[in-house]
Amino acid sequence: MSLQSLLSIETSGPGLYEFTDRVAGFLRDVAAEDGLLTLFLRHTSCSLLIQENADPDVRRDLDAFFRWLVPPANDPAMTYLTHRAEGPDDMPAHIKAALLPVSLGIPVVDGRLALGQWQGIYLFEHRAAPHRREVVLHLG
Amino acid sequence: MSLQSLLSIETSGPGLYEFTDRVAGFLRDVAAEDGLLTLFLRHTSCSLLIQENADPDVRRDLDAFFRWLVPPANDPAMTYLTHRAEGPDDMPAHIKAALLPVSLGIPVVDGRLALGQWQGIYLFEHRAAPHRREVVLHLG
Amino acid sequence: MSLQSLLSIETSGPGLYEFTDRVAGFLRDVAAEDGLLTLFLRHTSCSLLIQENADPDVRRDLDAFFRWLVPPANDPAMTYLTHRAEGPDDMPAHIKAALLPVSLGIPVVDGRLALGQWQGIYLFEHRAAPHRREVVLHLG
Repeated sequence: MSLQSLLSIETSGPGLYEFTDRVAGFLRDVAAEDGLLTLFLRHTSCSLLIQENADPDVRRDLDAFFRWLVPPANDPAMTYLTHRAEGPDDMPAHIKAALLPVSLGIPVVDGRLALGQWQGIYLFEHRAAPHRREVVLHLG
Repeated sequence: MSLQSLLSIETSGPGLYEFTDRVAGFLRDVAAEDGLLTLFLRHTSCSLLIQENADPDVRRDLDAFFRWLVPPANDPAMTYLTHRAEGPDDMPAHIKAALLPVSLGIPVVDGRLALGQWQGIYLFEHRAAPHRREVVLHLG
Repeated sequence: MSLQSLLSIETSGPGLYEFTDRVAGFLRDVAAEDGLLTLFLRHTSCSLLIQENADPDVRRDLDAFFRWLVPPANDPAMTYLTHRAEGPDDMPAHIKAALLPVSLGIPVVDGRLALGQWQGIYLFEHRAAPHRREVVLHLG
């Protein structure tokens, strides 16, 4: 038996968008018991991420680190980039999408995600313009 | 029910090698319906990657970024490395293999990969010498 | 049918702790045949990693690379960090936990992990203080 669903997540600029509650809601809706939940992101310029859900400074600092590691394409450090047609945030978004997860597997125990106490599920948007992002949920 | 297969991929130097079609072919061969496809790479000096399959500049820039982030061991920035016996591309290959996926889970819907429109599946080779790489496919 | 278990791993400072044997032991205990083993880490300041199990220099160099990429919060390069309440190793640990896997899927063939010859399974601890870490195993 496997169950699938599609979540749509609206983003408005770079940063972390938590959607743990929507995933837990899917498990309730299908009356999940034990199993494995897989999340799969259908994009190459944003990422999935499991991170601390307590102090918002952690999310801000994560964002700052990735901006330091992969600056916009018009930064003097990035002159080696050639893919520039879609704006200075485009190729850096692809690089961050390579560095961070596109799929995640999370065990489900008694219908609940086996997350640790401080773990939340996030979509990490890397593009500046608003986007509608799709995450496939698979319960098997 | 679970079905497994082994893909062999020949590489000839660093870069991205697409094999989306071979994965789709496996799903056709086994008459897959709904499920979860897991790809697992049996190596520690190359990676799996889902990335944009449209503009080849994206792949070139990804390659350039990772060469900037992890230069060869004979680069002045890398004097802290001690594992040097197998050549200047060896330890950087292990580092890139740590930073990029060794396994990927992709939902299958009606026998087709639930990839987004712009997503392709790649093997990212990090070594200079030709290699034969093995990817285990698991459909469950 | 799905089987789950919880491994506890004690750590005493940053570095790689191999636990391949304990995962293989779980498969023996449950008389696994073919399937997919998923490992999921219930923390946001350490990581899972599949890496070379032969030369210990590889682990030392991996550790050195990540210390170079994400220095402690009291390093002059890290002045942009704001989350500092839990010590100089805390926010860098979250960043490394974002860059490295929190979940891994490994096919199981005839009761054995489909790992390559040189692959071992590690917990990568990013914190200085001793910790007890939990890894959920799911066999499906």
